[in-house]
Amino acid sequence: MDRVVKKRIAVLGSTGSIGRQTLDVVRAFPEKIEVIGLAAGSNVTLLEEQAREFKPKLISVGAYGHTPLRESPSVGRARRAVPLREMAAHPDIDLVVVATSGRAGLEPTLAAIRSGKTVALANKEVLVMAGGIVMAEARKFGAPIKPVDSEHSAIWQCLQGEEGNEIVRILLTASGGVFRDRPAEELAQVTAAEALRHPIWNMGKKVTIDSANLMNKGFEVIEAHWLFGVPFDKIKVILHPASIVHSMIEFTDGSIKAQLGVPDMRIPIQYALSHPERWGNPNLPKLDFSRIDSLKFAPVDMVRYPCLRLAFEAGKAGGTYPAVLSAADEVAVERFLEGNLGFLDIPGMLDHVLGRHRGVADPSLDDILAADAWGRETAKGWSPQ
Amino acid sequence: MDRVVKKRIAVLGSTGSIGRQTLDVVRAFPEKIEVIGLAAGSNVTLLEEQAREFKPKLISVGAYGHTPLRESPSVGRARRAVPLREMAAHPDIDLVVVATSGRAGLEPTLAAIRSGKTVALANKEVLVMAGGIVMAEARKFGAPIKPVDSEHSAIWQCLQGEEGNEIVRILLTASGGVFRDRPAEELAQVTAAEALRHPIWNMGKKVTIDSANLMNKGFEVIEAHWLFGVPFDKIKVILHPASIVHSMIEFTDGSIKAQLGVPDMRIPIQYALSHPERWGNPNLPKLDFSRIDSLKFAPVDMVRYPCLRLAFEAGKAGGTYPAVLSAADEVAVERFLEGNLGFLDIPGMLDHVLGRHRGVADPSLDDILAADAWGRETAKGWSPQ
Repeated sequence: MDRVVKKRIAVLGSTGSIGRQTLDVVRAFPEKIEVIGLAAGSNVTLLEEQAREFKPKLISVGAYGHTPLRESPSVGRARRAVPLREMAAHPDIDLVVVATSGRAGLEPTLAAIRSGKTVALANKEVLVMAGGIVMAEARKFGAPIKPVDSEHSAIWQCLQGEEGNEIVRILLTASGGVFRDRPAEELAQVTAAEALRHPIWNMGKKVTIDSANLMNKGFEVIEAHWLFGVPFDKIKVILHPASIVHSMIEFTDGSIKAQLGVPDMRIPIQYALSHPERWGNPNLPKLDFSRIDSLKFAPVDMVRYPCLRLAFEAGKAGGTYPAVLSAADEVAVERFLEGNLGFLDIPGMLDHVLGRHRGVADPSLDDILAADAWGRETAKGWSPQ
Repeated sequence: MDRVVKKRIAVLGSTGSIGRQTLDVVRAFPEKIEVIGLAAGSNVTLLEEQAREFKPKLISVGAYGHTPLRESPSVGRARRAVPLREMAAHPDIDLVVVATSGRAGLEPTLAAIRSGKTVALANKEVLVMAGGIVMAEARKFGAPIKPVDSEHSAIWQCLQGEEGNEIVRILLTASGGVFRDRPAEELAQVTAAEALRHPIWNMGKKVTIDSANLMNKGFEVIEAHWLFGVPFDKIKVILHPASIVHSMIEFTDGSIKAQLGVPDMRIPIQYALSHPERWGNPNLPKLDFSRIDSLKFAPVDMVRYPCLRLAFEAGKAGGTYPAVLSAADEVAVERFLEGNLGFLDIPGMLDHVLGRHRGVADPSLDDILAADAWGRETAKGWSPQ
């Protein structure tokens, strides 16, 4: 690859946790990356600040949730304000970082894929909701999908140079979340404030709550299924509280490869930008193995973590079930954060919603969006017994 | 790669530990591998048995230590008996497994390289003695060198798909040997019989003794330097008693890759034969991660393991020093096994021999063989104070 040619990127969701960390990586490589587009939902103050620093050609504000484009007076002046989908497909852009959260990432991701762009994918819902469609379109348009999540990045890194070699098992590691050591009988009473104190990863609120009950890990299982074409019974979740081993793969010859590192999202974010190269970055933390005396692992208790079981079930059921799970979980987390749902009501509600859903096999995008809407409505209407 | 075309191999040292395990792998893939040549030093009985099973076209007996070829009545009858060097360079062979021990592997390895063959290298001394020459010849003749040692195989596996990416650090794992938990003050008294009881790896005598004092790990450091072009100050040895993580590499972006597996030499042997493919082999043991609760690591105490320090010093000094270390160690281990040298006399003798050596920089093969002979003589003449 010619290092003189800059990668021209758009960051969708630039004011969120992954978006900000992406720009932190970009900051270290002005000669390698050029920011062409920045898109944010509601944090116009930070977006303006980012726009002053990175001087993107394109800006998108408030395009989240399909609300109409609105132009911020100061952001809009010097730059062209475009809808999210237009930015994702813009000819001046090579790589689109999809760092939105929730279903908002789906349509711009498809737009980027259909324009043959490389997609660095941090938005879980894109593959959870519509993995079949997204992967088929990516193959059809030859658009590479590069995972940003630390676990999928680990698997992807371990798969480099292994083209054609069968995966026997994916070992997806899970920190176990903030309540890992909390007695099961206390879980019903935990508050949103407690759940937001994730000990290791610096993340957004939604994913932090999803990490506390392993719903997040469940979504990652569904993503891994789609990204790497591996059936669910070959994906195994293991607890690894320190989050140093980011995941592993086992091959047919008994060899296992793992990727390790300090739990810092900038490492997988940078790899998605630099791949197949690796770039030296003094700002990234280095793991000091002389200070590690052991790496601990444990099996996952599926009774303690019903959300993980539900994700496996929804994933295996396929069709529109994962979209319903994702939609209902978005509502469940909102309601938990607002204080009007208990922590253990989350899986209770999800189980209920999934059970009532009439799945559509081999769904179209419309089927998926309809299932998403149905899942949200049903979740909003649910109340604990 | 066309799977119908068999890899045609020769196994040099077929009756030794690695040789026998190589043939065990070959046994599982009659449609993929054809044994064209078998060579052994002195175990004619086993060689005859192997020849009856694998029906090689070429046989070499007693070529070790440059003693003249001798033909065993039964082995020699049906097949052509050839010198080791001729077998290594034979046009019917694609890949030469160098599973000899000691300096005997050096000349056939060079012969194989100069005929453009792929070399699966299990013989440590080849690179320890003559790494500079061997690697330069391999580059010149385009001969791939595939490591068989579990540690180097691990590094090599982790480097797949990482072409052009700089290695910041190699983390070479060491079991710590059979005396890892023995109080230092008792080490002077340990016997050869005790030293031969390695808890994990099933290996030959020389390498088992070398493992007990980490001399073996020191040789691996020198090999890693040559195989992967990494300076000595970027190679770090860490203790990992369970020998499940076979080694790791750290890249410039803070990402670390590791290869793991049951400690069974057939896994790296098979990978050297199958690379870049991986072959499903039900005979190979699979790591059951649900039974692993922790992987332990510890720094290496260089005072306790002076042989490792000496290897780093010889490696950094370069030229003929590593060849002298290797030659003197061969004598030291022989004398220890015979019972006329104490366990702690081994590093004492090696230190003495290295200290007396007048190194030759950028040595020719003759310089190396002369240094080897000098090292042996000096080691034989040494006696503990």
